[in-house]
Amino acid sequence: MAAPQTIAIVGAGLVGSGWALVFARAGFRVKAYDPAPEVRAGILPWARESLADLAEVGLVSDAEAILARISVHDDLAAAVAGAVYVQESVFETVAAKTEVSLALDAVIGPQTIVGSSSSGIPASQFTEGCRQRARFMIAHPVNPPHLVPVVEIVPAPWTAPEAVAQVVDLMRAVEQAPVRLTREIDGFVLNRLQGVLLNEAWALYEDGIASLADIDATLSQGLGLRWAFMGPFETIDLNAPGGIADYAARLRGLYAGMLRPARGPWPDAVIARATDERRASLPAADLAQRRAWRDAKLSRLVAFKKSQGLSA
Amino acid sequence: MAAPQTIAIVGAGLVGSGWALVFARAGFRVKAYDPAPEVRAGILPWARESLADLAEVGLVSDAEAILARISVHDDLAAAVAGAVYVQESVFETVAAKTEVSLALDAVIGPQTIVGSSSSGIPASQFTEGCRQRARFMIAHPVNPPHLVPVVEIVPAPWTAPEAVAQVVDLMRAVEQAPVRLTREIDGFVLNRLQGVLLNEAWALYEDGIASLADIDATLSQGLGLRWAFMGPFETIDLNAPGGIADYAARLRGLYAGMLRPARGPWPDAVIARATDERRASLPAADLAQRRAWRDAKLSRLVAFKKSQGLSA
Repeated sequence: MAAPQTIAIVGAGLVGSGWALVFARAGFRVKAYDPAPEVRAGILPWARESLADLAEVGLVSDAEAILARISVHDDLAAAVAGAVYVQESVFETVAAKTEVSLALDAVIGPQTIVGSSSSGIPASQFTEGCRQRARFMIAHPVNPPHLVPVVEIVPAPWTAPEAVAQVVDLMRAVEQAPVRLTREIDGFVLNRLQGVLLNEAWALYEDGIASLADIDATLSQGLGLRWAFMGPFETIDLNAPGGIADYAARLRGLYAGMLRPARGPWPDAVIARATDERRASLPAADLAQRRAWRDAKLSRLVAFKKSQGLSA
Repeated sequence: MAAPQTIAIVGAGLVGSGWALVFARAGFRVKAYDPAPEVRAGILPWARESLADLAEVGLVSDAEAILARISVHDDLAAAVAGAVYVQESVFETVAAKTEVSLALDAVIGPQTIVGSSSSGIPASQFTEGCRQRARFMIAHPVNPPHLVPVVEIVPAPWTAPEAVAQVVDLMRAVEQAPVRLTREIDGFVLNRLQGVLLNEAWALYEDGIASLADIDATLSQGLGLRWAFMGPFETIDLNAPGGIADYAARLRGLYAGMLRPARGPWPDAVIARATDERRASLPAADLAQRRAWRDAKLSRLVAFKKSQGLSA
């Protein structure tokens, strides 16, 4: 039996630590690095606690073995040595991403591939100066990556197609859901889709059409039920007798008629009004507790989807 | 103990029949009418089969009692007699909606309220001529209403606020999730949110950024997991340390930067390409089977949400 391959985690805050779980859970050896000692000290305790949460909903059964596959390193070169893949999740500024990419470029092996967790900055903005830039790309997760499977794989213009294909295969092997973009675009796919929906939601709220809670309910008690296991195209394909072409023929005029000119950024006064409305239903002091509630519900939903064959 | 109140279902195709289940399940007496004998003949057999499906996932326990509360009528006036509320779900054209509204206006009692299942035509386009138009409005469900809780309540300019409040209360009483719009707007809230997301998804596909399946996965394995139990505003409120205002301050510039000029209706050539791609993964002959799969998964998701306290 071959020894497990090694994955390096560079930048081990919440996103990087979640990635450590993803790879260790799938049987990889994980070497985690962060420049901050206090962040390094938190990795294994957090992983232990998160694995207990996953075990509670039946998502893992061998927490100790998973934990034993994760090691923490105080040296970048040591963490990366022997790694087939590096998941980089440092602070999201061009300066920080450029610095870490150049540092990685100096220490990775000639086959090692680097994926950045960047949610918005494309790889072309921070990997141009890397000698091995053909093996750098974006691998953008949703937080927390050990619960939400989607990962956007976005090549820079100089990223090698074979490297992209290898990362797609790797992500499938660890049961994430890779989404492959053919080229860079602002916001990638996921945040563009979230963005248009948010912009329309804010516009409806600004115009006084409905309350925040009611706009939220159109998703949480409506559209979101299907979108939790089918995307928008499959949804419309099944929503007309003749499939997607039939749906488009019937409804594209309606949807085109709803389009309105793009508005600018959400206005301060509207944000202030929304804040008052949210804080009336959820005081600021309760935000942390509600986040724990969200994570608990999310993990149970993920376990439910797995039980139904609806996972990646 | 008071006798149960009566609800009339007018137009009893799939949407109307689903509504019959919603009200009967909650203890109301339901009188269903449809002008077509073959539609009338199908109501009770369909309800029996659907109740068996609901019982299988634990969503109802007294299918026979629910069924016994539904009666079918071949006369509009008889169906509506004594009803506190009429849910109208006839074919969605201005002509059909106008005809049925005038017919209802002639036979309803002086307290009866009428909600139309119209998904796009506002009530002002078909109730202006009704003497009792102050008690007519839109109550737009998502199909099937006995599984998806959301209902958009949209008043015409002449709808009485007290009538709106009564329908909101009624919908809550039958465990639907009423979303209250202050006034009419094209597409209401739900289809506007769906529409902007669809338009962006089609644009990304048209531009060759990603495949249909990959765009779908950004929702089904990503955004949709949260939206299945939290709307977009609660999502962003929990996604920044300081809540919604903090999130908006950090990211409104990013989202404003992604806005692009609205495009026209989805082009024929793009629809043709999408059709080929969908039919390669799901042949037209398998559409019906996949719809049954969707409904089975949807009912299990609804049961899961109920078990987790995430229902309306």
